[in-house]
Amino acid sequence: MFGFPVFSFVAFSGTGKTTLLEKVVVELKSRGLRVAIIKHDAHEFDIDHAGKDSWRFTQAGADTTVVVSATKAAIMENRPISLDALLSKLSDVDIVLTEGYKLGPWPKIAVRRGATGKDFPVDPSECFALVTDVTIDSKVPCFGFDDAKALVDLMILNAC
Amino acid sequence: MFGFPVFSFVAFSGTGKTTLLEKVVVELKSRGLRVAIIKHDAHEFDIDHAGKDSWRFTQAGADTTVVVSATKAAIMENRPISLDALLSKLSDVDIVLTEGYKLGPWPKIAVRRGATGKDFPVDPSECFALVTDVTIDSKVPCFGFDDAKALVDLMILNAC
Repeated sequence: MFGFPVFSFVAFSGTGKTTLLEKVVVELKSRGLRVAIIKHDAHEFDIDHAGKDSWRFTQAGADTTVVVSATKAAIMENRPISLDALLSKLSDVDIVLTEGYKLGPWPKIAVRRGATGKDFPVDPSECFALVTDVTIDSKVPCFGFDDAKALVDLMILNAC
Repeated sequence: MFGFPVFSFVAFSGTGKTTLLEKVVVELKSRGLRVAIIKHDAHEFDIDHAGKDSWRFTQAGADTTVVVSATKAAIMENRPISLDALLSKLSDVDIVLTEGYKLGPWPKIAVRRGATGKDFPVDPSECFALVTDVTIDSKVPCFGFDDAKALVDLMILNAC
């Protein structure tokens, strides 16, 4: 649909999901792939810095505020935007990871850490893969928190 | 080309360009237009905050890092991107203002403040409009720093 595969990581907080995603990004990059990652923040975030010119433009009412330098850019949409609209703005990427989207049509990688006392946040039998330190009986491929390499192997195999 | 008009504001530093742009944004918004503004930063900027999950993903090597909430989103391109590529990522906007691009095919609005002792940064005769507190003899429409309303009238007239 968008020209790149999308994988959704889903987990309750405190599972070490961010650290796992860092490892997955490093593993994908080591294979020469261009990676985009989309984090859904249930709370409000403040990405810009008060007083900066860009912040002032946003305060003045700009719907979209962009800052660009010779090496990077930031596009701030100061209004609601759907995940589909966001995906349509991505280009020159080979794979997209999302975090915090329990819904959506993409293959899910669910994360569970025993110490949190919580189960997977979605039905594990409907997932593409699982990452956990708990011994479980499942037909879905299951990986440990240090198995980013094997997980990425499976992701790439599925994406081809 | 992109479905919306683009105007480039050009000025040396210290002219009050940011304040002028704030007024222009407010004026455009008061007319119900959707506004995007693109600021070219000659220096490097740090839009994200050290330690945040998104920052960690960027540090891990993500080419594109996105944060999205129910009300807004930020798309960070952690690599060089052309102005054309940036413009192609804009949607649902009626007008785009750029700042810091002296080149490019778009109508230029050049700014000069007498107290800086500097001239316009580009040939004023090639501009769409001028904003200055210096009395000048020019065939190009000229506005004072408090004339954002009249300047926006002319921009909209030209964009239709």
